[in-house]
Amino acid sequence: MGSTSRDQRDIKQRKMKPLYVIKIGGNIIDDEEKLSSFLRSVASIDSYKIVVHGGGKLATKLADSLGIQQQMIDGRRITDAETLKIVTMVYAGYVNKNIVAQLQALSCNAIGLTGADNNLIEAHKRKHPSIDYGFVGDIDTVDEKGISHFLDLGLTPIIAPITHDKKGQLLNTNADTIAQEIAKTMSKDFEVQLIYSFEKSGVLLDAEDDQTVIPTLNRHYYSELKADKKIFAGMIPKIDNAFAALDSGVKKVIIGKAENLDKIIAGESGTAIIHE
Amino acid sequence: MGSTSRDQRDIKQRKMKPLYVIKIGGNIIDDEEKLSSFLRSVASIDSYKIVVHGGGKLATKLADSLGIQQQMIDGRRITDAETLKIVTMVYAGYVNKNIVAQLQALSCNAIGLTGADNNLIEAHKRKHPSIDYGFVGDIDTVDEKGISHFLDLGLTPIIAPITHDKKGQLLNTNADTIAQEIAKTMSKDFEVQLIYSFEKSGVLLDAEDDQTVIPTLNRHYYSELKADKKIFAGMIPKIDNAFAALDSGVKKVIIGKAENLDKIIAGESGTAIIHE
Repeated sequence: MGSTSRDQRDIKQRKMKPLYVIKIGGNIIDDEEKLSSFLRSVASIDSYKIVVHGGGKLATKLADSLGIQQQMIDGRRITDAETLKIVTMVYAGYVNKNIVAQLQALSCNAIGLTGADNNLIEAHKRKHPSIDYGFVGDIDTVDEKGISHFLDLGLTPIIAPITHDKKGQLLNTNADTIAQEIAKTMSKDFEVQLIYSFEKSGVLLDAEDDQTVIPTLNRHYYSELKADKKIFAGMIPKIDNAFAALDSGVKKVIIGKAENLDKIIAGESGTAIIHE
Repeated sequence: MGSTSRDQRDIKQRKMKPLYVIKIGGNIIDDEEKLSSFLRSVASIDSYKIVVHGGGKLATKLADSLGIQQQMIDGRRITDAETLKIVTMVYAGYVNKNIVAQLQALSCNAIGLTGADNNLIEAHKRKHPSIDYGFVGDIDTVDEKGISHFLDLGLTPIIAPITHDKKGQLLNTNADTIAQEIAKTMSKDFEVQLIYSFEKSGVLLDAEDDQTVIPTLNRHYYSELKADKKIFAGMIPKIDNAFAALDSGVKKVIIGKAENLDKIIAGESGTAIIHE
């Protein structure tokens, strides 16, 4: 009975402040100063928060030092057994635990996790008719309850882009996709805002000019910009994913510069992707 | 109010079955078959459990491959910045997450953690009048509440031998000591049994003969054996630590072979260190 009333209280509280799911890109991870400024902003968010990180160039550097060749097929990196070992070491070990230690120093109670921990993210090895991507995972399920428990305890989960297949196999998984799937799943009980932070100030009208940020982008405007070829190739899957997230219950998706996280949270920076 | 009754219920339940704190040595980590047999035994324990692991020879191998010299002073390994990076990658990344993934495949809900995660183990950089050990941590506090929450949720914490100083610095920390400090701290609310599993069947009367296991060892008998020089050097700190753990409230300390974990739990294998 105690349990039920506590659970009900927890669920009620979950709707009272937003849950920020924040993806940070590799270029921030590689830059000590930018990373520490970004983490100060994360620590100062007085709300639920989850950080999903990539790995930056460290994994590639380590592979180079060890003489491990990166296999590419059709411009896509293949995760063979040696590469999986490296990304597990770098993403789940070095990068993840250093972020956690830095946040702890800022009195933000972080906990570093992969999809294998607490079975948070179950995935399967990617199936493709012609390409064997190796140990790359496509996500099946995100455990909403498991993540909620951590948030209820006041913890900030720091998620490394490694999942598992529940059969003992770790899998390399795209960090953008992890952030999106977590945001979608957590929308059941939380008011989720999904933030993609990267090196540019938002979606730009002129890709070369960081001053041309589009403050809000709805589907109609997006179609226009695509028709005018004003949105460059790499941005299209990010924005498509953003609209898909909105369709799945995420309240707001914002794309912006990692160094501006404070302003993004305040609604003063970045591009907000909205329904209408 | 719900919270209080739930907490009280949790605390009551904690005393109803033992908490096993199990240290596994490096030689098991290095042997795929032994490790997987050990993990099957861990998964089958129907009680609270925590695993603390070392790193085996993987860290040394990786350092060798990268041409990083292991610094030794007076026979002790020094953890310089590069070595810390390697042990963080290998222990907290590769070893920890592979153990977690394997346990998940056995339906044991494992969560891999370092002392930085959830601020579970706070330490300080070792102070020594003449030797600078580098980034080696001596433990100050273990967060009993944080670990209890995970156990109450039905999770099995898998602890890598990395701690932090709460100022942003990760620290390399002896896994035996971590197991002992966790066992001592958790004794406040749990009936703790501390198991040191390694390559021998227990404390041996004849170090060369694995059939000469001493089933129980109390202080008196231990003094006799030491006087007779029947206990070899490496074993002495382990046994001294075991008695210190008993003095701090741990119910039982057992030293035994990792492959015999089932039998150790059943009281049919290993050396039990007891008060009287």
